Formats: sequence, structure tokens, C-alpha cells
Amino acid sequence: MMHKINVGLIGFGNVGSGAVKILSDRKSLLSSKIGLDINIKKICDKDVLSKRNVSVDKGLFTRDAKDIINDPQIDIIVELIGGIHPAKEFIMEALKKGKSVVTANKALLAQEGRELFALARDRGKSIYFEASVGAGIPIIKALREGLVANKFSGIFGIVNGTSNFILSNMSENDLSFSVALNEAKAKGFAEKDPTLDIEGIDSAHKLILLIYLCFGKFVALEDIFIEGISHVSLADVKYAADLGFEIKLLAIAKKEFDELEVRVHPTLIPKSHLLSSVSGVFNAIYVSSDLAGNLLFYGPGAGQLSAASAVVSDLVDLTQGLKAGMFRPTLHIVEDRSIKKLRRIGEIKSRHYIRLVTADKPGVLAKISGVLAKFGISIASVNQKEKQKAKVVPIVMVTHEAREKDLRSALEMIGRFDVIKEKPVAIRIEDV
Amino acid sequence: MMHKINVGLIGFGNVGSGAVKILSDRKSLLSSKIGLDINIKKICDKDVLSKRNVSVDKGLFTRDAKDIINDPQIDIIVELIGGIHPAKEFIMEALKKGKSVVTANKALLAQEGRELFALARDRGKSIYFEASVGAGIPIIKALREGLVANKFSGIFGIVNGTSNFILSNMSENDLSFSVALNEAKAKGFAEKDPTLDIEGIDSAHKLILLIYLCFGKFVALEDIFIEGISHVSLADVKYAADLGFEIKLLAIAKKEFDELEVRVHPTLIPKSHLLSSVSGVFNAIYVSSDLAGNLLFYGPGAGQLSAASAVVSDLVDLTQGLKAGMFRPTLHIVEDRSIKKLRRIGEIKSRHYIRLVTADKPGVLAKISGVLAKFGISIASVNQKEKQKAKVVPIVMVTHEAREKDLRSALEMIGRFDVIKEKPVAIRIEDV
Repeated sequence: MMHKINVGLIGFGNVGSGAVKILSDRKSLLSSKIGLDINIKKICDKDVLSKRNVSVDKGLFTRDAKDIINDPQIDIIVELIGGIHPAKEFIMEALKKGKSVVTANKALLAQEGRELFALARDRGKSIYFEASVGAGIPIIKALREGLVANKFSGIFGIVNGTSNFILSNMSENDLSFSVALNEAKAKGFAEKDPTLDIEGIDSAHKLILLIYLCFGKFVALEDIFIEGISHVSLADVKYAADLGFEIKLLAIAKKEFDELEVRVHPTLIPKSHLLSSVSGVFNAIYVSSDLAGNLLFYGPGAGQLSAASAVVSDLVDLTQGLKAGMFRPTLHIVEDRSIKKLRRIGEIKSRHYIRLVTADKPGVLAKISGVLAKFGISIASVNQKEKQKAKVVPIVMVTHEAREKDLRSALEMIGRFDVIKEKPVAIRIEDV
Repeated sequence: MMHKINVGLIGFGNVGSGAVKILSDRKSLLSSKIGLDINIKKICDKDVLSKRNVSVDKGLFTRDAKDIINDPQIDIIVELIGGIHPAKEFIMEALKKGKSVVTANKALLAQEGRELFALARDRGKSIYFEASVGAGIPIIKALREGLVANKFSGIFGIVNGTSNFILSNMSENDLSFSVALNEAKAKGFAEKDPTLDIEGIDSAHKLILLIYLCFGKFVALEDIFIEGISHVSLADVKYAADLGFEIKLLAIAKKEFDELEVRVHPTLIPKSHLLSSVSGVFNAIYVSSDLAGNLLFYGPGAGQLSAASAVVSDLVDLTQGLKAGMFRPTLHIVEDRSIKKLRRIGEIKSRHYIRLVTADKPGVLAKISGVLAKFGISIASVNQKEKQKAKVVPIVMVTHEAREKDLRSALEMIGRFDVIKEKPVAIRIEDV
């Protein structure tokens, strides 16, 4: 009889039932590949009655996670309940009982990862989390194992499918943000309360994990500059397109000398760059490494089977370690100690797209450019658009690289002019 | 003292010296990550005198590979001499002596992989080969481990940097094939004899390895339909661009029912597809998987440190297995037995781009379209270009999906007409 690894699953929802389905449908394929059986020994869920798309022996179910955590025959627990509590406590208890852990819980790892990974290391156990970023795209494995010898200088990620669907739908079909958001909801790509997705929080959670993998540091959520996409207008999407850019919600970490920039915001990306072509609910992570160069990993950023595919690959990795007589702990993550501090958002430098809505009067452009010059901001291109209703004229500009602080001051001053009819819009351009 | 793994390197050329450099420069980073030291114990090369960009203790050098293969203290050999013989014999001897192997030798694995992998499996050892496709892009790891639970239906790869540099240079700078080839040579992106690259052989070698990973089968080189890029003209590149396509040398494996299509040829790819934006010496592999969906892996397809980065990640993987008390053999590759045969090239169906150079006479188009209709080929678009010198008129067409055999027969018949002034050109369109 083939040796088997016992797994306890906590959370039998969408991804959990997907994982059970894959383990059942692909049982013989997986056994042939890994040389042992992955056996789901127990499943814990508050709801053990609802039907899922996989049939499971009723005897496996429990409503009490302790039945899994305290089972000495269970080698690995898979946590898929989401949220901070009690997921954190379950994982900590499991590690203390000598089990390794697979989880897709990006919010938990982003917030409590430092403590959880330290505990795992202490106990010689592993936490695998491939499904937490980019669903089935094997990005965690790529960064931790495939690029193990590399140092990194940048991460640029489209890591929230909901936001990317909305932005590309606006761009491709000339929709306003709110119409595109409603369409995303109707298609099941956005939740009823989409705040976490469209306000960039989910992207920031994933960025924290990518930074941990590339730089060995846990950045706190409150240290990340986060700006969502709810204020992105169709006008900006169209003007950006005319200038040769797509607007994407980008999660960015850039190392420069001893500083790290960490930010999530709508970003103009040149159409010549691969990231600009990532549309719909797809995700893509672009990383700059010093040996392997600039790499891009692209795929569906969500989906039951896609995320479950990642959970199963984590299980297989863990079983491979166990087969050799003991769990092979994850490759240790090593901190990049050359990073001394996080750069404040005011200090970052980038090009900017600016849109101003002005009164149709002589001398307006002179006034605006005068203020920009005063703050040392030079203009790369100006486009005065055709007059719209009520004598207002949109002016679209692209600046050369300027310090964010200076740009903000300039726009604040410009915004106070009588001839400026709407709050000035500025969107960062990233020359990835 | 930290436990160490002894490695013997056979082949101290470009990639070999790059790997030694990384292992030396990143010694402490790697040791911290993996918990042991990777120690280069011996280096074999015919030329032990030339200077490399890394300094090595002269005592490590040998001119005789047997000194490495027969050294019982060496755990892993790295084969980087290229070519079939004696690389094959070295690897077989090493496996028999209980060593695992890291190689970047795609030609060898493509030709002799069946035998070599069978021997490795027999002996419970592993052959790692991450550097053999896409240099530092961790595509092998992604397919074998990250997507371990998936079944695949398609592979579409831009896997030859030389050809891609030439084609994108033609497209971006309006160059003829021969000028672009010379530029590639001048920049060191093409070898003096570029046949293997531009005639698609190298792409076919890599395709064989990708097929092995995705479908568990070794396809023979002679069973792959291979067409290179040397006949691609600037005119075709420009007309394709007008129609919304880029021409790329694509390595394709597609599963349909119980058949597998395997082919390498210039291909029109819609500009909306990510693969069309892969330019220069970059590589990209697009795979269709049933759980994780459509994924793309992109990065530099060549380069000393990029390939060496992959070699080092293979070494790290192997040491992780050894640390746990024994070598963890590679996940077994399992054959997809639902594939019963390879589809013959005449039977594949695709849309085609066709260019005909015709005399400027009435009735030409009627004659051509009559022949196409006779073979059941329907036309999606026709574009009669402006008359050129000497009263010849180029006609550019796009067909609907047609069987290759029928298209060839039609073009052969059309090519015999007096009004056709040049051999008809046909390039497959892939709706990836």
C-alpha cells in the first residue's frame, strides 16, 4: 500500500471544495507523480450541510477545528476560512502541534505574517501560501525557489482582478467607473461591498507578501501609500489612451539605494509595456531581478479551480519533503539589510499625467505653467482639448519626472485659481 | 560547521563560470536560505587556462571529467559542455555513480531525454534542467511543480531569442531579414552560423522538453513540423501589421481530442495577444491548463547570469532534497495516455495569411478566389495593394480556418497561373 499523508481542511467553501475535488478527480495522477497519496482525513466547516460540487464521505466532517488540530495523524492543515480570527489561532495551534500549514489567507499573512512565519521557523515547520497572490500563477514558488539566487529591485503587480476588470472595461467599452463596477458585480467579479478591491487594500495585502518574498521584510499596511480606482474617470482613461497609455491599478515596490518605495495606485503604463495589455480579471506580476532580468508572470487572478490548483501544488510540495523522512522546511526568506527605510510618498519621483478643467479665457495656460515652473516641474507635453459645454476647456499635460511633494504643492496652488473649474486630476506614470 | 554539498562542474564556459560566480558572490545569501553550503569541489574543462570573470582556486581544475564522475564525495554534477557526446556519457556515468545532474543541454535532452530520464528514475536520482528553456524564467519548475495538478491543452512558446530579435527588429525598424540578421550577429544575439536558431531547430528542441513536462511524452525531432524564419519578408511583416498582427516564430503543441499537434513556424499573432508584444531577445511561454487557466511566463531567453540563475536554482532544489537525508527525486512526469497520435501537418486547421504577387490584369482575383473556393477555403478579407514597379500587384488575403492540405493544393494550383509572378506566400495565423 502506498504511503499516505493526512490532511485536515479547515474551511469547505469555494476554494476548499475545489481543492477536495482536484484531490479526488486527480488522485491517481497525483499519486503517480509524487509517489504517495494525499488523503483528506477531516474537513471542518460551520456549514457541513450545503451541497458542494464534490461528494465527500459525511464521516469526514466536523464543526470543531480542534478535531483537526489535535489529530496526531494529520500532517498538514489547510486553512481556507479567511479573515484574521480565528484563522490565526488555528494556524498557530497547528504549528505548535507539529503540523505544516497551507493557506490562501493574504489578509492574515499580510497583517500577522511576521509572527506566523517566525513561529513556523521556530518549530521547523512551513507555511505555504501559493494561492494568496495571483491564484494559480506559481508566483510564490518562482520568487522563493526559481529565483532563489537573485536580488530584486522592483515589483510591479496587477494583483486585483476586480479593479483590472473595471479599468479595462472602462477603456475597451467607454464606460464610466460606476457602470463598469456594476457590470463587474453582475458578472460576479466584484463583491457587493467592493471596497477592499477597488480601494487598493487587497492589492496592498498581496504587495506585502511579494515584498516579504523579494526583500525579506514585512511592511505594515499603514506604511503603504494606497490610492484606489474609484476616482478614475472615463475622461482620464480616454485621454491617457490618446497619449499612448493604459491606466492600471499597480502595486509597486521599488528599491533605490537604501530606500524602498511601497505604493498602490492607479498608474499610467505605456502601451508598449506588457503590463498594459493585461486585461479583464487577469493578474500579472512583473519583477526586476539582477540575474534573471525582468520577468513577467501572468494568469487568471481568481477562480475556484485556479486557486485550488495552487493549494494542491503547496500540498504536493509539502508531501515531497515528508516523503524524504521529515518535512523539508520552506527555503528561509532572508532579509535584505541594505534597505534602511521606506521612502515617503512625498519624496518619490515620477512623471505625471495632469488634467485640469479651466475656463475658456486667455492667459490660463500661462498661469498654470508659471506655477509648475515655480515648483521646478517641467512639462513634457500639453494638449488643450476642444471646448466643452459651458465654456470649460480641459487641459491635459504630461510632466517630466518631478518630486511628488512639489507636484502636490503646485496643483494645490493651481486648484485655487478662479479659472480652474474642477479639482485638478493627477495620475502617476510608471516607466516600468 | 555548516553541512555542505559537493558539486562537480563539467564545462567552465559562459554559463558555467556564471554559476560559479553566483555561488561565490551569493554564498552567504544562499547558505542562509538553504541551511547548507554549496561547494564547487572540482571543475572540468578542456581549457583551464583562459581567464573567466570569476577567480577560482587553480587546485579545483581538471581536464578529465572522470575525476569528477568518480569522486565519491561529489553529490551533484553540473553538465554545461553542450552537444550530444560526450555529455550524454558523462551524465549516464554520473547517474550510475549515484549522483544527480543539473544540465542546460536542451539538444541532448531533446534527443536522448527518454533514455536519460529513465535511467535517472531507475537509479532514484534526478536530472534538473531549468536553464534549458527560457534561461532564468522558472518555466520548468512552474510546469512540473507549480501546475502539478493540471492537465494541459496547449503550449505556445517564443523560445528562441535570436529569431525573436530578428523578427521584432524587422517589424520595429523596417529592416529586411538579412539586415536584421546581420544586426543580430553584430550585437552578439546570433551565432556566426545561425542555422539552429533561425531555422527553428533550437525552438523545436525546447518544444520537445515543454511537451515532455506537460504531456509526459518525448516527441522525436523528425516528428515536429519545423519551418524557420529565413523566408519571412519585410513586406509580410508590414502587411501583417496593417492587418493587426505581429509575426513571431512560435513553438506550438496543441491537444485536440486524442491528437497532438507539434510544430514550429512563423505565425501571425493578433496584436491584442500578449505574445505579440514580446520583442527583442525576450522569451515567453504561454500555456493553457485546465485548472489554473491560461498562463504566460516571460523573461530574457538568454544571457550568462540569467541561465546561471536557473542552474543555481536547480542546485538549491537538489540540496533541499539531500538535506532531508536523501535526494528527493524529481516529481515523476506522468504520460498523458489520452493522446493516441500526432496530427500530421496536412491535417491541421488554421487561418492563413496569403500574399500573392500578380500581374495587373482584369480577372485575376476571380481566378484566384475560384481556386480557393474549389478547395473549400473561404476568404475573410482581401486587400489589393497599390500597383508596384513593372505592373505587379500584391494581393493580401486572410482566410477563414482551412485544412493545411487543402490550402497547399490550392496555392500550388494558383502558383502555376501565368498571372502569378512570385511563389505564393502563406503564413499560419494562430488564434491563441
